[in-house]
Amino acid sequence: MSERSDLTIAGIRLTPILVADPPLLNTQGVHQPYTPRLIIEVETAGGVTGVGETYGDTKFLDLARPLAEALVGCQVSDLNSLFTLAALVCGDPQEVSDSVDVGGLRGAQTADKLRLSVVSGFEVACLDALGKSLGLPVHALLGGKVRETVDYSAYLFYRWAGHPDGQGGGRTPKDDWGAALDPAGVVAQAQRFDREYGFTSFKLKGGVFPPDEEIAAIRALAEAFPGRPLRLDPNGAWSVETSLYVAEQLGGVLEYLEDPTSGTARMAEVAARTDVPLATNMCVTTFPEIAEAFTKGAVQVVLSDHHYWGGLRNTRELAAICRTFGVGLSMHSNTHLGISLAAMTHVASTVPNLDYACDSHYPWQTEDVITRPYEFTGGRLTVSDAPGLGVELDREALAAFHRRWLDDDGTMRDRDDAAAMRKAEPGWETPPVPRW
Amino acid sequence: MSERSDLTIAGIRLTPILVADPPLLNTQGVHQPYTPRLIIEVETAGGVTGVGETYGDTKFLDLARPLAEALVGCQVSDLNSLFTLAALVCGDPQEVSDSVDVGGLRGAQTADKLRLSVVSGFEVACLDALGKSLGLPVHALLGGKVRETVDYSAYLFYRWAGHPDGQGGGRTPKDDWGAALDPAGVVAQAQRFDREYGFTSFKLKGGVFPPDEEIAAIRALAEAFPGRPLRLDPNGAWSVETSLYVAEQLGGVLEYLEDPTSGTARMAEVAARTDVPLATNMCVTTFPEIAEAFTKGAVQVVLSDHHYWGGLRNTRELAAICRTFGVGLSMHSNTHLGISLAAMTHVASTVPNLDYACDSHYPWQTEDVITRPYEFTGGRLTVSDAPGLGVELDREALAAFHRRWLDDDGTMRDRDDAAAMRKAEPGWETPPVPRW
Repeated sequence: MSERSDLTIAGIRLTPILVADPPLLNTQGVHQPYTPRLIIEVETAGGVTGVGETYGDTKFLDLARPLAEALVGCQVSDLNSLFTLAALVCGDPQEVSDSVDVGGLRGAQTADKLRLSVVSGFEVACLDALGKSLGLPVHALLGGKVRETVDYSAYLFYRWAGHPDGQGGGRTPKDDWGAALDPAGVVAQAQRFDREYGFTSFKLKGGVFPPDEEIAAIRALAEAFPGRPLRLDPNGAWSVETSLYVAEQLGGVLEYLEDPTSGTARMAEVAARTDVPLATNMCVTTFPEIAEAFTKGAVQVVLSDHHYWGGLRNTRELAAICRTFGVGLSMHSNTHLGISLAAMTHVASTVPNLDYACDSHYPWQTEDVITRPYEFTGGRLTVSDAPGLGVELDREALAAFHRRWLDDDGTMRDRDDAAAMRKAEPGWETPPVPRW
Repeated sequence: MSERSDLTIAGIRLTPILVADPPLLNTQGVHQPYTPRLIIEVETAGGVTGVGETYGDTKFLDLARPLAEALVGCQVSDLNSLFTLAALVCGDPQEVSDSVDVGGLRGAQTADKLRLSVVSGFEVACLDALGKSLGLPVHALLGGKVRETVDYSAYLFYRWAGHPDGQGGGRTPKDDWGAALDPAGVVAQAQRFDREYGFTSFKLKGGVFPPDEEIAAIRALAEAFPGRPLRLDPNGAWSVETSLYVAEQLGGVLEYLEDPTSGTARMAEVAARTDVPLATNMCVTTFPEIAEAFTKGAVQVVLSDHHYWGGLRNTRELAAICRTFGVGLSMHSNTHLGISLAAMTHVASTVPNLDYACDSHYPWQTEDVITRPYEFTGGRLTVSDAPGLGVELDREALAAFHRRWLDDDGTMRDRDDAAAMRKAEPGWETPPVPRW
């Protein structure tokens, strides 16, 4: 027992990177050719390295740097202290109160949300290091898996074949998906997801075209895949009345409707007038937002995201709260790489009340920082029993993506879907909410 | 890393015991001279033994035996599975729905509560074994301590000098506290708790005498210890009107009023009409009871008890829920020994929102099953950094207390405070609720 390796954090390496991202459309604009991520490596005095991944935009880096310094000398097992330490050293970033989040798709931005997203990357890296040090998979550090495999859903997007204006070379490397801009395109995309990955449920990112067009796309999916779970997520782009109209049109077809409208008050109003369950990763994204939303019955499904909630252990606490209040649980995803997918799969395998297949952007990413990228089989991933997360950093890839970040002239280091859209539509501004 | 000891459960030993208990009074009767506890030893294939402690009454033993059998072959790290396994093998005990709990002091008894109390003993034993196997204290398995010491409060009781009718030899061995049956006796008891243990806050177990007598006792405490936190707990013995009367009389003096009346509806009624915070370990003792109580504002402080809630990890989830809903948190205690005190201290050290000093019966117990019984200094315990819980079984004591259980004629194996009371008052029946 005494020969257990030293768990003291000896050093932390932060590597901001830019990774290729296809031209996926949402209500705010379109993904840029490259998106920033931050790779965190925590090295223990025992010579073990754990890895984590989170948002890489400047405002996250600005918080990650002092936290990395402050953590040296702590134990990788000191996970409860991460939050107090982060609050202490990160301070409250200025000018966040009235701005919107990265991609504008996470409700109002707050200092709390930024800080927790940074903490999550460190927490995952610490868990990876702790697991490797102890010879235990991360799921065992979370109390053990209650399922061997985790179900994911296909994440359908309206998209172009290539980035506008020749950005990033136009077409993302290895991205051969082509455009999807109407019901037929969406169905074709879903068919390929079904064929190549075996996903059984489908989510369409909406809020891009007028509601009737998106209703038509969902109806086309329902016809092509009878009985399969379908979801539609316009990222809060609709008014209460439009939300109710869509819910009525798609009532018999949708598994749930995701963030049809913005804010807890409007969501509660919609929820009160439809039987279609409402899911969210916008109006309930931090613990302080839960009480009001649950008390008002504003949401029936919370889409957790360990980046938002401050890590895997907080995600489990969110799951306990949902279980206690009879609210469903599934998992949200923003653009992410294999480290975060590993983390998502570990925590998902330990949560008894995971009620729906999880979202993941992963199939859209053509690049990764791990040596053996994940492959979905039957729409599922098997949780790893190897020590830690069970992933290995591809240092060559990491160096190349970091070089890309270093070489960037500043246009891609902070995700800006509206700026990307202006390459195609010069006058584009982030649409007002509700858009329809 | 690969030399980590094998975490597979090779065997489990259950040792029911009877330990000495002084004649402490409550609204249902008086403690018997001996009280049953169950000591659980989980032995791993790696040769490590972890210990846990829970209720020892027959109905708990009946559930513990099949669970112990089913757990052989599992990993001590498989803590999430404990609950599903317990639900599977324990079944639902009959005839619990309309009966009251051990000591009648835990609200309505349910199959769920019984099962979780059994699981808690196994969970703690697994955590102890896991910690010893990995060279980590239990608090580190829970994410690490956020405080070095845990504050406890003095637990004052109305009591007799000895057990009635010469039971258990009359006076409990080493119990030299003497009687406390009026304000002066309560103050003298508190003074000794203050002097010998350094407790700074005081809780009086009430519901024993008419409310005005207990109000007088609290006033006497307030006079003897100006400014110190005081609490009164009649175990739900009062009506709504009586509760409000007491709250009005003691409003400026009480830190909180604990379970003045029975049931969420009555608690909510009292809460709505007084500013004195209400605490509970009766109307919110399982997760399904939370939503209604929190939504109605029935309780302002939940007194967690890892035995009730199914272990240390569930206690942390309860803490997260309380934090999220702005409800205070502290810790309840029933008669327990050093293993449970170690468990309480470990989990308490990891919970950021531990808002009040914890209750503990421990100073009343004159016997223990650990080699180095705990001593309170300044009303506090320092959490152990030794692997596991940091306690060692006193096998000689354990054997002696088990022998006492074997030799018992059946009168002490199931706690029955009313039966004990009948030794002093032959016609005694458990009083109806509300009693006053």
